[in-house]
Amino acid sequence: MQLTFIQVLELLGTFAFAVSGATAAINKSYDVIGLLALAFITAIGGGTIRDLLIGATPVAWMTDELSNTAIIVAALIAAVFFSYVKKLTRLLSTFDAIGLGMFTITGINKGLAAGLPMPVCVALGVITGTFGGLLRDVICGEQPILFTREIYAAASLAGGILYLVAGHYTGIPGDIVQSIAVSVIVTIRLVSLRHNWQLPRMRA
Amino acid sequence: MQLTFIQVLELLGTFAFAVSGATAAINKSYDVIGLLALAFITAIGGGTIRDLLIGATPVAWMTDELSNTAIIVAALIAAVFFSYVKKLTRLLSTFDAIGLGMFTITGINKGLAAGLPMPVCVALGVITGTFGGLLRDVICGEQPILFTREIYAAASLAGGILYLVAGHYTGIPGDIVQSIAVSVIVTIRLVSLRHNWQLPRMRA
Amino acid sequence: MQLTFIQVLELLGTFAFAVSGATAAINKSYDVIGLLALAFITAIGGGTIRDLLIGATPVAWMTDELSNTAIIVAALIAAVFFSYVKKLTRLLSTFDAIGLGMFTITGINKGLAAGLPMPVCVALGVITGTFGGLLRDVICGEQPILFTREIYAAASLAGGILYLVAGHYTGIPGDIVQSIAVSVIVTIRLVSLRHNWQLPRMRA
Repeated sequence: MQLTFIQVLELLGTFAFAVSGATAAINKSYDVIGLLALAFITAIGGGTIRDLLIGATPVAWMTDELSNTAIIVAALIAAVFFSYVKKLTRLLSTFDAIGLGMFTITGINKGLAAGLPMPVCVALGVITGTFGGLLRDVICGEQPILFTREIYAAASLAGGILYLVAGHYTGIPGDIVQSIAVSVIVTIRLVSLRHNWQLPRMRA
Repeated sequence: MQLTFIQVLELLGTFAFAVSGATAAINKSYDVIGLLALAFITAIGGGTIRDLLIGATPVAWMTDELSNTAIIVAALIAAVFFSYVKKLTRLLSTFDAIGLGMFTITGINKGLAAGLPMPVCVALGVITGTFGGLLRDVICGEQPILFTREIYAAASLAGGILYLVAGHYTGIPGDIVQSIAVSVIVTIRLVSLRHNWQLPRMRA
Repeated sequence: MQLTFIQVLELLGTFAFAVSGATAAINKSYDVIGLLALAFITAIGGGTIRDLLIGATPVAWMTDELSNTAIIVAALIAAVFFSYVKKLTRLLSTFDAIGLGMFTITGINKGLAAGLPMPVCVALGVITGTFGGLLRDVICGEQPILFTREIYAAASLAGGILYLVAGHYTGIPGDIVQSIAVSVIVTIRLVSLRHNWQLPRMRA
C-alpha cells in the first residue's frame, strides 16, 4: 500500500484528534470502552456531522479503514504511554493543526461538490475541522474549548475563506490554492498557540 | 425582494431564537466564534434535527440565505447592544413565541408531506420548535429549560394537536387552521410566561 | 395482533430503556415533557443514531407504533409508581440486558444489510444498544455511565463479535447464532452486574 502525501497528512491529523479524545477520556478516568469511543468521536465527529448535514451516507468513516486503524492505534498509544505522550505537546499540536487544515479543506470540497453556497461550504469546512472536539467537550461535561479559548475555529475560518476566494477569483491551480490554505491554517493555529493569542471573549 | 407575512413571522422567530443563543454565549463568556455558533445552533438546531430524522438533506438552513443573515445580524446586535437587548425581554419573548408557533407548524407540515403518522408529525413539530434550545442548553452545560421550566414544549404540543385535529376533522381551510394554531401556541406561551405558570415537576 | 417472541423481547428491552430515561428525568425533577422526551431519547436514541449514520430515513421509531406506545406506557408507569418501580431493580436490569442484546443484533444486521465492513457492523450494534443511554447522560449533565462504569458496552461488543464470527465461519443457522449471541450478551451483562465487575479505568 502506497500512501499519498495528502493521505499521510490526513492520517497525522486523525491521529492527533484521536489522541486528544483519548487524553480527555484518561483525564476523566473513563474505562477502555470510553477511551476508544471518545477517541473515535473526537476524530470522526466533525466529518460525520458534515456528512449527515449534506446527506452523504453511509458517513465517511465507515468505509475508511485506514483512519479507523489510526484512531485505534492512537487511543492505545495514548493509554499505554500516557505519561510520555502528554510531554509531546508541541508535536501533537502540530499534527492537530495539520488535521484542522486538511479537514477544513475536505469539508469545503464536499460542500462545493454538493452544490452548496460558498458561505455554507466554509461553515462545513469549519464544522469538519472542529465539531469533533465540540462533541468531546460536551460528552465530558466541559465548556467547549472551541467557543472559549484559543484561535482554533478562527484559523479554520480564515483558511477556508482564503481557499474559496483564491480558488474562485484567481487563476492559481486548485492543488496550489489548497496547499496554501492548509499552510495558512496551520501557521495561524501554531503561531497563535505559541504566543497564547486568544479571541476576545464576550462580557455580560 | 418582497417578503410575505409568513416569512416575516418566521424571520422574527429566527431572530429571537438566535438572540437567545447569543445571550447564552455572552453569559458563558464565549468568544465571537462561540457567539455565532451558538446563535446558529439555537436558531436552526430544531429544524436540522427534524430534517435529519426524515432524511431531508441538505438540511433546510443550508439554502435559506435569509434566515442565515437574520441569525448573524441577531448575534451581532446581541453582542454589541447586550445591555440594551437584555431589557427587551417582553419583545423578545413575543418574537420567540411566534417562532415557536411557526416552527411547530412547519415541522408538522414536513412530517405530513413525508407521509408520517399524525402523532409523529406532532413530535416533529415540537422538535422543530424546541430542540434548538435543548442543544443550546446541553452545549452550555445547563439543565435543559425545555424539560424543567415553563410552558414551552407544552404550548407547541397543544397547538400542534389542534392543528392536526382541526385540519383533519373540520372543513376549515388549511391557512386559517394554521393561523389559529400559531395564535394558540403564541397565546399559551405568553400568558403562561406572564403568570409564571409551570408544569408540575416530577418528584423522586 | 399476534406478537412474535422476538417482538416481545424487543418490547421488554424498549420498556426497560424508557424506564431508565424516565427514572433519570424523575431524579432530575424534570416536568412531564422532560419525562416523555427523556424516555423516548433513551429508548430510541441508539437506533436513531445508527439509522442516521447509514442513511436509513425516516428513522425506525417513526413507523414503529408498538415501541412508541411501550415508551409512553413505561414513562407513565415510572412516573406514577416511582417508589414501587425503583424497587424492581433486578427485573428492570434483566429487561434492560435483553434490550441490549436484541438491539445489538438488530444494529449489526442493519449494518450487514447496508454492505458495511464487519468491524463497522459491530460498532453499529454497540451504538444501537448503548448510545440512547449516552444521550440520556449527556442531556442530564451526568458523566456517561457507558464510559465509566460496569460491563455494558463490553457485553454488547463481545456478543456482537461472537455473532459475526459464528455466523460467518460456522454452519450454524442464523436464528440459532442470533439466540446464542443475545444470550451471551444478557449473561455477561447480568453476571457482571451481580458481581459488580467493572472494566479497569484509565489513570492519568
